[in-house]
Amino acid sequence: MKYSKLFVKTSKETPTNENAKNAQLLIRAGFIKKEMAGVYSFLPMGLRVLRKISNIVREEMDNIGAQEILMPALSPKENWEKTGRWDTVDVLYKMELSENKEIALAPTHEDLVTPLVQQFCRSHKDFPVCVYQIQSKFRKEPRAKSGLLRGREFLMKDAYSFHTSQEDFEAYYEIQRKAYKHIFERLGIGDITIYVAASGGDFSKFSHEFQTLSEIGEDEIFIDSVTKEAFNKEIAQGIPDDKNSKDSLKDLQTVETTRNNSIQESVDFYNIPSWQVLKTIVFSTESNQLIGACIRGDLEVNEILLQDLVEEKIHPANETQLKENNLIKGFISPINKPKGLNIIYGDESLKTVKNLNTGANEFQKDYLNANLERDFTIDTWGNFAVPTKNFKSLNNNPLEIKKAVEVGNIFPLSTKFTDAFNFKVVDESGKEKSVIMGCYGIGVSRIMGILAELFADEKGLIWPKSVAPFQIYLAAIGKKDEVYTKAEKLYQKLQTANVEVFYDDRRNKKIGPGQKFKDHELFGIPTRVLLSEKSLEDSFVEVTDRKSGEMQKIKIDNLLNFITTL
Amino acid sequence: MKYSKLFVKTSKETPTNENAKNAQLLIRAGFIKKEMAGVYSFLPMGLRVLRKISNIVREEMDNIGAQEILMPALSPKENWEKTGRWDTVDVLYKMELSENKEIALAPTHEDLVTPLVQQFCRSHKDFPVCVYQIQSKFRKEPRAKSGLLRGREFLMKDAYSFHTSQEDFEAYYEIQRKAYKHIFERLGIGDITIYVAASGGDFSKFSHEFQTLSEIGEDEIFIDSVTKEAFNKEIAQGIPDDKNSKDSLKDLQTVETTRNNSIQESVDFYNIPSWQVLKTIVFSTESNQLIGACIRGDLEVNEILLQDLVEEKIHPANETQLKENNLIKGFISPINKPKGLNIIYGDESLKTVKNLNTGANEFQKDYLNANLERDFTIDTWGNFAVPTKNFKSLNNNPLEIKKAVEVGNIFPLSTKFTDAFNFKVVDESGKEKSVIMGCYGIGVSRIMGILAELFADEKGLIWPKSVAPFQIYLAAIGKKDEVYTKAEKLYQKLQTANVEVFYDDRRNKKIGPGQKFKDHELFGIPTRVLLSEKSLEDSFVEVTDRKSGEMQKIKIDNLLNFITTL
Repeated sequence: MKYSKLFVKTSKETPTNENAKNAQLLIRAGFIKKEMAGVYSFLPMGLRVLRKISNIVREEMDNIGAQEILMPALSPKENWEKTGRWDTVDVLYKMELSENKEIALAPTHEDLVTPLVQQFCRSHKDFPVCVYQIQSKFRKEPRAKSGLLRGREFLMKDAYSFHTSQEDFEAYYEIQRKAYKHIFERLGIGDITIYVAASGGDFSKFSHEFQTLSEIGEDEIFIDSVTKEAFNKEIAQGIPDDKNSKDSLKDLQTVETTRNNSIQESVDFYNIPSWQVLKTIVFSTESNQLIGACIRGDLEVNEILLQDLVEEKIHPANETQLKENNLIKGFISPINKPKGLNIIYGDESLKTVKNLNTGANEFQKDYLNANLERDFTIDTWGNFAVPTKNFKSLNNNPLEIKKAVEVGNIFPLSTKFTDAFNFKVVDESGKEKSVIMGCYGIGVSRIMGILAELFADEKGLIWPKSVAPFQIYLAAIGKKDEVYTKAEKLYQKLQTANVEVFYDDRRNKKIGPGQKFKDHELFGIPTRVLLSEKSLEDSFVEVTDRKSGEMQKIKIDNLLNFITTL
Repeated sequence: MKYSKLFVKTSKETPTNENAKNAQLLIRAGFIKKEMAGVYSFLPMGLRVLRKISNIVREEMDNIGAQEILMPALSPKENWEKTGRWDTVDVLYKMELSENKEIALAPTHEDLVTPLVQQFCRSHKDFPVCVYQIQSKFRKEPRAKSGLLRGREFLMKDAYSFHTSQEDFEAYYEIQRKAYKHIFERLGIGDITIYVAASGGDFSKFSHEFQTLSEIGEDEIFIDSVTKEAFNKEIAQGIPDDKNSKDSLKDLQTVETTRNNSIQESVDFYNIPSWQVLKTIVFSTESNQLIGACIRGDLEVNEILLQDLVEEKIHPANETQLKENNLIKGFISPINKPKGLNIIYGDESLKTVKNLNTGANEFQKDYLNANLERDFTIDTWGNFAVPTKNFKSLNNNPLEIKKAVEVGNIFPLSTKFTDAFNFKVVDESGKEKSVIMGCYGIGVSRIMGILAELFADEKGLIWPKSVAPFQIYLAAIGKKDEVYTKAEKLYQKLQTANVEVFYDDRRNKKIGPGQKFKDHELFGIPTRVLLSEKSLEDSFVEVTDRKSGEMQKIKIDNLLNFITTL
């Protein structure tokens, strides 16, 4: 492609209606245009990148025998009702298809793909089967502020596999995991992308995320530094650090205090570290019980883990619930367990601290030097603290906590969707069983955003070769016709040799060498080949690597050979 | 691909929830699945066809320098309001994007692409520019009964060009026309696809359709058999056939009649041919005038042509309007022009008939032998009859009328959309001008449906090679392992040689040679290669052409060479 034939122009200005770095850069480079929050057009350069990412994903899915299909966005209400998701998926765009018939714009396709595969696969001989598509998804996001990272309309690869047994599913899950590994390697993020256990939601114990380490990430992942097992924040557990387990017990004291209700006030009032405070947080359960969660004052409760322990949905209790049960906010304590609390859960972190400060279940009255067993008891123990960097892993190894951004996920769905459609299979012994299902997602346009965030510097984008819109940015500079004649020949030669070359052929007083260099750097094409008047004199071109900035002089006649070594 | 790895199965049953032949065949062959009326999933075989059609279209667009982009389906209400189409495009799906923000699912993209191109193209040097996309469109069709021919969600190629002058636009329009010609040639319908002038709607005098001749077509096209100029029914005109212009005038008579109000009743009552009836149809205009359109009784009024003549929007008058103006339905006549009629338009067909029967503007009273000039006059003449096969073309050549199906259209948009967005360009002389625009559409999934309708027989589909999901259907039959070992080798060999081969490797008591032949015929893959026990004995395979059914014996070792000659 020639620059003179590209209708898009680059911009020096950072767009004012866009906060996310990825979208700012991609807009400035003319790869995308923002149509609305979370909705973008892909322009010629951007579409090339999007398609390269799609093709890498497609090839790896094809390699493991997944079969490509294309389902519609319009999906009937009946399907969403059968799976119970019409009212529970809050990002569902709903509208009228025609008179009296409602539909949703699918944000994901379990609700369509399950009956689709069911129609054809009835015998155990038809399994396992995996289908996938690369298709536009729609999500009614209340806020869409992360550029391509969180869109209202976005391109996604979603695969769905179906199995006659849990063992077969688990083996296939591993095959998908490896395919994802290859995908991220080919995208240039293999070495910084981590396989992370995440919550399985309503469906299974675990699902898994692929998290790419990055300071821009909004997620935190927790890694055993020896075994390299990793967990996301939803489910990470660790062994709390020992604060003062060797200390001898002091006498329990009751004191009047002027503090109000925060841990920090207690810390300030008594001049103690926050870990010496015994914190009791009250939750209400779905069966309308109030439970107390006791934890060391410097730690946070992981509600998902606590919920697993309670085996019921929980929510933080509100002020009305506390008042109705005579629980004094900020002074709730397991000592003389208040009648309002049905049960006290204790986090493991409490086993390694002595002489704690806590409220005394009365306003502005505290206990000092409270100690486990002597002064208070726990009904049920659990490990529901969010680990800190001082924790050990559950294997007693050092724990690393890193920022990361999610680039993909794979998810056991068990029989949640197949049961909704009564999708059964008769196995070899003639027994009817529910079909086991898994799903495997990658946000293709999201990946483009992530790569733009990760691979950039102050000058612009730096695409990995595998997804760069072109491999070579051929720039001709100067005023002599001969330069452009020679450049044109070189352009033709490279194209004939199937080198993906973008030729900056612009001849315009306003566009000097500086502008051409800047555009190359903003575009992020891996290699720049510069042809100037001097090139003609000494038969060399300057070949510059976008990432390192390193320049080499290469003989023009040798350029094609040199490029093949890049 | 191997049949054993394909999760889809063919079906003998014609689907009961589908009336269109194209969709019935494609569903039976497992190429598509119906999700709702007008909404389909594309299964592996179908997706291959869809992608081949897309790629042909893409290559031809790229060849003429059109630049590929990808716009979203979600489009802001503001854009549709600017073009005045929010309330006038009746197929627009509308919904809430987020709180208080409405959007449409785009059925076409003028409203998004115009400001997109405007953002980058400001100088006359930036023109002409053409962008296109291949993208899913949404249309709120009240009825969607034609399978892939009329979808609520469908894949479309839509291109938009922008120009600084009408001359430049017209030259480019011709370039697009040629690209479309190449596309239809490559799709195997070049020889039966006709370039047809159609109405330009609100935008211009003409647009153009590409109509493929076919008995299944719902459209009629009118072709000058000498010049080959073609027009669609909206705008076709001709020279009426002479019925009895040489007859001598008879005396005008007034008669009582028992007939009611239809032409047929008049024909039956007087035992005359329908062309001898003078028909007067009443329309109301936007400015609330009633007009009479007089035409020969055997002909139909083309409302679009009459409207052009009237230079106002018109609608057939309703019974209330007739009554209020003392016009007696079935007996309205230009003789003694009724006061209720503001103006009488006459079709050319009336100039060549004598001695007509007509109502007498009184209930059950008729005139016989009415003649132009002597008995009645016409205020304004026009040519607004829908031509019949007895007409001549306007060039006085024989006229052919054929059934056809629309496969594409190209459309001058003039400044309708660019003016809405105030998209101007400063030309070389420094003068500011509105940008001229054109649009160019092809329904990619619609084409798939049309090809399925056109290229099929009682056994199934017959794809043109250019879009066939595979080129070779390799079938192994019989019980001997050696056949399957040999077939597997052949499969590998063909794949290595980049032959697109589908291998029916099924070994299953229920699937005999007959089933394999039937599946091949239903799939419509151009060539079948049959490997049997006999093949092993005499080293030949049977190569059968799907279309002609002709079989040739080819030496196995020579198969690859033979295939390259197909």
